[in-house]
Amino acid sequence: MCVTSPEKRLAELGIELPELPKAAGMYRSSKRSGNLVYVSGHVPAGFDPAIPVIGQIGKELTPAQGTEAARLTALCILASLRSDLGSLDRITQIVKVFGMLKCAPGFNRTPDIINGASALLIDIFGIDAGSHARSAIGVAELPFGMAVEIEMIIEVEQS
Amino acid sequence: MCVTSPEKRLAELGIELPELPKAAGMYRSSKRSGNLVYVSGHVPAGFDPAIPVIGQIGKELTPAQGTEAARLTALCILASLRSDLGSLDRITQIVKVFGMLKCAPGFNRTPDIINGASALLIDIFGIDAGSHARSAIGVAELPFGMAVEIEMIIEVEQS
Amino acid sequence: MCVTSPEKRLAELGIELPELPKAAGMYRSSKRSGNLVYVSGHVPAGFDPAIPVIGQIGKELTPAQGTEAARLTALCILASLRSDLGSLDRITQIVKVFGMLKCAPGFNRTPDIINGASALLIDIFGIDAGSHARSAIGVAELPFGMAVEIEMIIEVEQS
Repeated sequence: MCVTSPEKRLAELGIELPELPKAAGMYRSSKRSGNLVYVSGHVPAGFDPAIPVIGQIGKELTPAQGTEAARLTALCILASLRSDLGSLDRITQIVKVFGMLKCAPGFNRTPDIINGASALLIDIFGIDAGSHARSAIGVAELPFGMAVEIEMIIEVEQS
Repeated sequence: MCVTSPEKRLAELGIELPELPKAAGMYRSSKRSGNLVYVSGHVPAGFDPAIPVIGQIGKELTPAQGTEAARLTALCILASLRSDLGSLDRITQIVKVFGMLKCAPGFNRTPDIINGASALLIDIFGIDAGSHARSAIGVAELPFGMAVEIEMIIEVEQS
Repeated sequence: MCVTSPEKRLAELGIELPELPKAAGMYRSSKRSGNLVYVSGHVPAGFDPAIPVIGQIGKELTPAQGTEAARLTALCILASLRSDLGSLDRITQIVKVFGMLKCAPGFNRTPDIINGASALLIDIFGIDAGSHARSAIGVAELPFGMAVEIEMIIEVEQS
């Protein structure tokens, strides 16, 4: 698979990015140092309220709903990055994904859930640029009771 | 706001950094690679024992006390960085803050708490250099029962 | 202590690296950007089933067993890195270690447990290259119920 433009690929897939997420505190959506961009933790906010994103995966959310929430979270990150960078085409590779989940006690298939984000990234950026290092853990609490929070490190072209 | 020297700004604000934190294990307070410095997880240790820093935020600590504990943790990090770098004036920008909190079940206003650290950093380093990418989560346990642990990535001048 | 070759040091210590860990999802064992390599979260998989690695530290696992599980996790990471880089001798320094533990409620000696990984890294890479920045936290759930997950950032020689 050769992906020349993540922006074209998004259009091909008919994916529209959600509204620009708002920071929940005194931080930026991303910060750049050299050609690395550190993306703040994002949650799946701003979607149809009928889509479940609040609660524990394995309880209020089924695993399939958790996986979809992870995909939506990745879309929020892409919306932030398009705004911060001007275009997703400036991204040279996805480096690292850190997935944090609010799991019901005993639900530990965290990698399956975060695959919802990883599959999207690989689809949009291609297998070489899109595949990434990753950790996926269950935490005690996430902002506003959200089921998923994801932060990322990406590499951009030298400016 | 134009901040030419974090060290001068600290003096202006009358802030004295706490005693140098001690590592709780086999690690360094920070490690440099290129012009990035990775700061180890710090807790708010070494302060007046009357200041509550142990327990859950939303239970043993009020949110306001949690926010103050996050501010104190940032001061501990600055004490480590001054020692490791020689001067805080060598810091060119705060890149990333990762805030980990011990929350009472259901307390999920984690961004408000970590604002205690973020506000201090922005005050000392200025809005451009001081603002940062960030995640703020609730975890199950922190070292020694502490309510707050924060790690950071900062950028320093080329040596 | 002067360590010229991590590969020779491993041989001196008679340590054999475990079988190459398998990714549990759509991610790579590590991803490189510049001369930093981001290592995915690893768990202590693939060892003698008699060695306890599943459950909570402080309940199913004693602290000593947790420390050993952290050491085994570091060995898994080294197995991945040898495969990804061709040789551990290409590593110039260990930069950052992030240790995530499944702790029994109230067990908060997380630094002691992650020392199991840190001590091994310092032994193999030497005090200068092997010592690192670190955080060590207790989380709610880890993949497959594992007691330990560790991710790392390492620096490699310029290629």
